[in-house]
Amino acid sequence: MNTEQMQPWEWSEEHWRSLVGQVRAGRRLHPATWKDGARCAVALSFDSDHETSELRDGGRSIGRMAWGQYGTRAGIPRILEALRQNGVKATFFVPAVSALLHPEEQRQVIGEGHEIGLHGWIHELNSKLPYEVERDLLFRSADMIEKVSGVRASGLRTPSWDFSPNTLKIEKELGLLYDSSLMADDDCYELNEGSDPSGITEIPVEWIRDDAVYFGMDRFAGLRPYTPPEAVYNIFQHEFDRAYEEHGLFQLTMHPFVIGYRSRIWILEKLISYIKGKGDCWFARHDEVAKWVTENS
Amino acid sequence: MNTEQMQPWEWSEEHWRSLVGQVRAGRRLHPATWKDGARCAVALSFDSDHETSELRDGGRSIGRMAWGQYGTRAGIPRILEALRQNGVKATFFVPAVSALLHPEEQRQVIGEGHEIGLHGWIHELNSKLPYEVERDLLFRSADMIEKVSGVRASGLRTPSWDFSPNTLKIEKELGLLYDSSLMADDDCYELNEGSDPSGITEIPVEWIRDDAVYFGMDRFAGLRPYTPPEAVYNIFQHEFDRAYEEHGLFQLTMHPFVIGYRSRIWILEKLISYIKGKGDCWFARHDEVAKWVTENS
Amino acid sequence: MNTEQMQPWEWSEEHWRSLVGQVRAGRRLHPATWKDGARCAVALSFDSDHETSELRDGGRSIGRMAWGQYGTRAGIPRILEALRQNGVKATFFVPAVSALLHPEEQRQVIGEGHEIGLHGWIHELNSKLPYEVERDLLFRSADMIEKVSGVRASGLRTPSWDFSPNTLKIEKELGLLYDSSLMADDDCYELNEGSDPSGITEIPVEWIRDDAVYFGMDRFAGLRPYTPPEAVYNIFQHEFDRAYEEHGLFQLTMHPFVIGYRSRIWILEKLISYIKGKGDCWFARHDEVAKWVTENS
Amino acid sequence: MNTEQMQPWEWSEEHWRSLVGQVRAGRRLHPATWKDGARCAVALSFDSDHETSELRDGGRSIGRMAWGQYGTRAGIPRILEALRQNGVKATFFVPAVSALLHPEEQRQVIGEGHEIGLHGWIHELNSKLPYEVERDLLFRSADMIEKVSGVRASGLRTPSWDFSPNTLKIEKELGLLYDSSLMADDDCYELNEGSDPSGITEIPVEWIRDDAVYFGMDRFAGLRPYTPPEAVYNIFQHEFDRAYEEHGLFQLTMHPFVIGYRSRIWILEKLISYIKGKGDCWFARHDEVAKWVTENS
Repeated sequence: MNTEQMQPWEWSEEHWRSLVGQVRAGRRLHPATWKDGARCAVALSFDSDHETSELRDGGRSIGRMAWGQYGTRAGIPRILEALRQNGVKATFFVPAVSALLHPEEQRQVIGEGHEIGLHGWIHELNSKLPYEVERDLLFRSADMIEKVSGVRASGLRTPSWDFSPNTLKIEKELGLLYDSSLMADDDCYELNEGSDPSGITEIPVEWIRDDAVYFGMDRFAGLRPYTPPEAVYNIFQHEFDRAYEEHGLFQLTMHPFVIGYRSRIWILEKLISYIKGKGDCWFARHDEVAKWVTENS
Repeated sequence: MNTEQMQPWEWSEEHWRSLVGQVRAGRRLHPATWKDGARCAVALSFDSDHETSELRDGGRSIGRMAWGQYGTRAGIPRILEALRQNGVKATFFVPAVSALLHPEEQRQVIGEGHEIGLHGWIHELNSKLPYEVERDLLFRSADMIEKVSGVRASGLRTPSWDFSPNTLKIEKELGLLYDSSLMADDDCYELNEGSDPSGITEIPVEWIRDDAVYFGMDRFAGLRPYTPPEAVYNIFQHEFDRAYEEHGLFQLTMHPFVIGYRSRIWILEKLISYIKGKGDCWFARHDEVAKWVTENS
Repeated sequence: MNTEQMQPWEWSEEHWRSLVGQVRAGRRLHPATWKDGARCAVALSFDSDHETSELRDGGRSIGRMAWGQYGTRAGIPRILEALRQNGVKATFFVPAVSALLHPEEQRQVIGEGHEIGLHGWIHELNSKLPYEVERDLLFRSADMIEKVSGVRASGLRTPSWDFSPNTLKIEKELGLLYDSSLMADDDCYELNEGSDPSGITEIPVEWIRDDAVYFGMDRFAGLRPYTPPEAVYNIFQHEFDRAYEEHGLFQLTMHPFVIGYRSRIWILEKLISYIKGKGDCWFARHDEVAKWVTENS
Repeated sequence: MNTEQMQPWEWSEEHWRSLVGQVRAGRRLHPATWKDGARCAVALSFDSDHETSELRDGGRSIGRMAWGQYGTRAGIPRILEALRQNGVKATFFVPAVSALLHPEEQRQVIGEGHEIGLHGWIHELNSKLPYEVERDLLFRSADMIEKVSGVRASGLRTPSWDFSPNTLKIEKELGLLYDSSLMADDDCYELNEGSDPSGITEIPVEWIRDDAVYFGMDRFAGLRPYTPPEAVYNIFQHEFDRAYEEHGLFQLTMHPFVIGYRSRIWILEKLISYIKGKGDCWFARHDEVAKWVTENS
């Protein structure tokens, strides 16, 4: 009987150790202090998936396509306004197809000082792709994002945080500075291949710090936005408060077609206002965070 | 390999652009001011699906049929009373079969100054129908609603907001003024076919502003009314508050068999009372909103 | 093409009218006043399913069987204590198999002045049974409940509120006074077969007024007790408040293995206390309510 | 027709009685007083599943493996710190594979005075295993846990609380003192095989007192952490308050990769602080509770 046919409780120790060891959190990247002596770093990110959410599922629903358009038409302007008013810089992860559909948006995002990171070609799931296809899509995405925005991306957030067994290798081939798809810690760490340091910095994400988790809506999948917005704000604030207490990193993942609504954008606004009230936090783009922790840990 | 067999990441740019471009939000219809100088427009709507919710799923459950009857027997009277007491006019979207089952209800709705809009034949999903069938059902629905209520409808809300690739064409053939099924913005816009203006005004809906999203119950599908009613009220109020701030439109979708219960009708009553307290909002039927934004944008 | 093969939008009017007309809410049974001039009637019910919840699903899980045992071992004593301390009588709907497993419990329930109603044989779904089987199970259930408790039941709550096309006929054959499985109104009504009065009184239930809806837990079905207990209390109180305002009936469905826990039993206790504070409400068993509304409407 | 082919409503009384009777709650183990005259016992437990959550499902997702690593890297240190600061001892249930992956963690847990209980080999579901396999995995788990931690375990929590028809027999063969997987009461009881006392003490668990129920997240299964953390705290506190009132046991199940986050660890901290404020509660490991109730009931 080969391993593929075995049940997990029949696996050899060698096998389960190999599964666990593929990609591991390595060296902790928790600097003694943040830029300009700040006590805490705040890294806000927005995944500008727009119509690719529906395209990658087949693209048949006109209703969901309109929902995607909401992201670019209503969500992005509200988010940019909130950031602009507070002088905050953030990172936007953009699938290549979304960038090609909305090139002006990307140029505005860059023009206002924000970062654009990679987010796949059409929001595909990497773990379903062979190495060659994943590599090709990611290299083409990097070129397209650069062509549209004028800036070469230095980080990748895998779509749906679906990190394949080949992703780390491709990130190295692309010469990226950081990844932002995994969640083995609250603070940054170096990604290891087995026990070998990869040189890639992980800026960890978490479902807890993702607006779509609480507000997702899929008529046919049974997802509903059940959590009250006030509760979502409180969760985010608690995550920040402890990060502040620990002199650590507070990272947040949002989506223009989720947080951008009239009844939710206040969460972002109030959070920024609350954090600014502390007086000693560094709002930074993901690339700035990755650079800082790599050089100062 | 033809497109149908391709994975989304293999599609040509031409193909994904064609999928995105079918129906788009075009010209923004955000008037400088609302009727009589009002700062904000408030468009309340109720989908009187009643027994068609169960009929369109096969009609086998007597329990769910009783639930549908609740809508007409208990929900509608409470809603009409709340509207009457506050002098507010609203829009009721009614499947033809529901109107035929409850003709007196429709006449009362019209008699009290409300609007009746189209909502399909038996709450069928348009995207499952060929063009001829969708067209036939919609034309027959328009005739039946007119026959029952005495008024020709000027707007359509597709059942389950399921807008097919043929819906816009049929709406134009029917000579409708507006659609209320899509969600590419908070405020009204003109529907485009590709880049061509269609002349049809969209009064956008949103799952966020739909009572069934938070209160849905389906024993076998795992849906439960998990969100506390107080939280639902707060979400609706936040949506209104920002619409008011933006001098925009606040649109709401409710259902007699959802909002009409003793523990929920207060949400509607309190919301109307809160909005009236502002003193400068225009409660309008969907047809009035569509007419106003078309003529004043 | 016969009707069975048709899609709902292809059905003849005759067909959908026949589906809707099977069992309908008929004459409203809303008395001008309640017993002893009370303003409002309060009918509390508990479905003592215990181990039958797991048995009817195949009976394979020892964990879920223990959960069922919790109902009889911990839930029922807490509930009886809460009712006893407040001098409140209620109705317990008990599957025959549950009564046979726990005969002493049934005798205690009757001994303390409560009512026992029918609730199927082993919590089976009626709509899956042919007429003969449903009839046989229900007649045997009535005999077993009488044999165990010493009292002949006068009402039925179908398991899972799954009312079959034959249920009403069997209820009449059994000579029942009332049913409590349907939900076409907030207040009592007479059940009609088509347009013919059946003589059976409906004491309507509602998912909104069912503890299991908010607190259900099924590891493999994705159900979770997501709603905070405070919110559940508030929903129940709102349902009561409006019933009180309308001089109507407030009916509630609970389960010993749901409401009987340390973190939830306070909902029942506080609700009774709140209602008693009003001073003019009649706590009544379901049979008393059915008798009163039949004789006084 | 044999029983396997029958529907539950066709089963003989003998059959359903045999299904119910496999494992039952027997003698109640509710001591008149707790150690040192304490009014209430508090048994905190943590299931250190870490990477086995993903391994037992096939081990393919690198993202979920990182989530498991969070448990050992971030969750365990925060939990141990909270316990250390308050001088509280607790029980950690650890799958053998998890212990082998993280031996230092187990030694630290033991070194700080906590208990390690069995939790399966790789978090397998017992009810899917034949007797011989379940027995072999459990015996090997007991040996491995002893080898890693230096202490022989005296209790078992079956993974996913999935107690098979053979589990009780194997627990006796292993000479265990207690089980903590079933939920037929709030307070401890002796497990019976049919009506025969087994000598094994049950320390009952409950989904209500399990952090994963409210905070579970599975992108593909539709699970989301919908319940606000404040509500979870309130539920736990209510469970404690009534246990305190009843002079009983308050038992809690948590997970390092669930409760260990910045926005949730306060629930544990605040709960300990609240309970300590009472002044007369005994924080005890599960083995201490089992020993006490066995000797003092």
